[in-house]
Amino acid sequence: MTTDAQLLAALREHRNGYIAASEVMRRLGLSLAALDGRVADLRELGYQIEVKPHLGCRLLSSPDVLHADDLMARLPANRVVGRDIRVFKETTSTNDVAEKLARDGVKQGVVIFAESQTKGRGRLGRKWESPVGKGLWFSVLLRPQLLPTEATQLTVVGATALARAVQSQTDIAPDIKWPNDLLIGGRKVAGILTEMSAEVDRVNHVIIGIGLDVNQAASDFPPDVRKLATSLKLERGQPVHRGDLAAAILIELERDYARVCRGEFAALADEWESRCTTIGQHVTVLIGERRVQGRAESLDDSGALLLRTEHGRIERIIGGDVTVEKSRP
Amino acid sequence: MTTDAQLLAALREHRNGYIAASEVMRRLGLSLAALDGRVADLRELGYQIEVKPHLGCRLLSSPDVLHADDLMARLPANRVVGRDIRVFKETTSTNDVAEKLARDGVKQGVVIFAESQTKGRGRLGRKWESPVGKGLWFSVLLRPQLLPTEATQLTVVGATALARAVQSQTDIAPDIKWPNDLLIGGRKVAGILTEMSAEVDRVNHVIIGIGLDVNQAASDFPPDVRKLATSLKLERGQPVHRGDLAAAILIELERDYARVCRGEFAALADEWESRCTTIGQHVTVLIGERRVQGRAESLDDSGALLLRTEHGRIERIIGGDVTVEKSRP
Repeated sequence: MTTDAQLLAALREHRNGYIAASEVMRRLGLSLAALDGRVADLRELGYQIEVKPHLGCRLLSSPDVLHADDLMARLPANRVVGRDIRVFKETTSTNDVAEKLARDGVKQGVVIFAESQTKGRGRLGRKWESPVGKGLWFSVLLRPQLLPTEATQLTVVGATALARAVQSQTDIAPDIKWPNDLLIGGRKVAGILTEMSAEVDRVNHVIIGIGLDVNQAASDFPPDVRKLATSLKLERGQPVHRGDLAAAILIELERDYARVCRGEFAALADEWESRCTTIGQHVTVLIGERRVQGRAESLDDSGALLLRTEHGRIERIIGGDVTVEKSRP
Repeated sequence: MTTDAQLLAALREHRNGYIAASEVMRRLGLSLAALDGRVADLRELGYQIEVKPHLGCRLLSSPDVLHADDLMARLPANRVVGRDIRVFKETTSTNDVAEKLARDGVKQGVVIFAESQTKGRGRLGRKWESPVGKGLWFSVLLRPQLLPTEATQLTVVGATALARAVQSQTDIAPDIKWPNDLLIGGRKVAGILTEMSAEVDRVNHVIIGIGLDVNQAASDFPPDVRKLATSLKLERGQPVHRGDLAAAILIELERDYARVCRGEFAALADEWESRCTTIGQHVTVLIGERRVQGRAESLDDSGALLLRTEHGRIERIIGGDVTVEKSRP
């Protein structure tokens, strides 16, 4: 952990009071002059840090920027997800950066954030808008011991972890729309793009890309998108601190990824189903040119959606565009 | 088509006789001086071209080098496979080069050859020996409209096409060992590494990597490999022209890929089964740490192997290490 990260971690431990400067100096192995230097640097980044002669130091507020050290300081020590975090001011697509790192042999768990993406991608090659500082656009590189057919499990990991973190930070419980969207009041607030590189019978790596609309105002969305999309700020009525939210998401991703790695996907699928508004609905799925209609029954153990068609047959759906039918006798 | 490719194509059309210099000049739009220049350049590359004052030109022999123009000149006009061909003297791995081109948005059908690879790869991350000029080491980039679960079909394409081309060029019919090896007399002569990049429900691209041992002498193989591996030269007793063989393989790949794209995988699977020595045998499959035993019955329509276990149950196998049991009551 860097000195900045250690200092922020120490300040956060004493968030409701002061931590003595001598204690910080001891824990970080810093002289008073060096501590002053670190504090000055963090203030420059927008951290409000109070230093009082007899009381010590206190973190008053953190800026709404993504700071790799600060994010890492909030994560558990022996984590996989967020083992390393890199924040880009701008990049083409965080999935592309993660893909490049994967091919360079980088270990699993690295997370790539960007303040904005010039070529953000959604599923099926669709464009994903990612304006500067308004949301969380990031990708997690994983190397699970799964078959390619089981990679759908990681889309489920992404959706459940993201929903849980959003709920803990905003008190809003988003709905999951199969396979990869988070909705609030029927409007899309987040999408997940899971990409894999694989041999026919072995996954080389999986990248979970997440786009979450956090602090957009209504006017930040193009007019045609506004009816379909929303942000956490719009739903909650006040801005959400992106750093707090990002840390919470990474912690939840760690938890759910560990469950999949331990072979406990069934428990995760149960949680997913309880959050998923698609289950129990009559839906139409468009797979390329093919249209399948039926009642969404449940997830199977590879993360595919089981649809009971009108002929009573169960059809296993691994992807496609899902439309929920509004009314049905 | 480049001028070199056109010239070689014209010479090959008249392989058993001469083509008039005036005819070549007309077809290629060249002056006599320009034609002399092209002939001199090709001779420099090792092509033996005879030019006789009254008879015209004749191709006596082609060098055993891989020449992109020459390969393209032998392929059908509206092909997908070999639409573009690039030959490297040395590269890390042709699959890696193809992967990079795929991410740069290059169209399907490009083929990457290398005279040698410094980091040739086989399945499951194993090293693949690829000594200079002794074999065919190449990769084909494809963008099929398949689900990730159907990508196994392309391993079947690779194996059937390769077996047919080897047979037409050497009169030796190699056996296919599921899922990706070609054997002659029980020794491995070729391997196929099929890699894909995919979303959970959509293939972005597939790379079929082929390594074929052509002109190795016994002493070219490391001692521990020699018992398990062979080359076409060793089996046939004389060298095989790599350019002729490469062109034949690309033509067969084109044919089988077209069959898959037309949804005619079943016909391909029948041919595959007739060449596959694994079918009908009692085999042991090692999938990670799991061991499955049974009788290999057939391929299913996604290219997976159907194994009848000792309890009579059919198990669907998409990968793993297969050992054929030598004797069985």
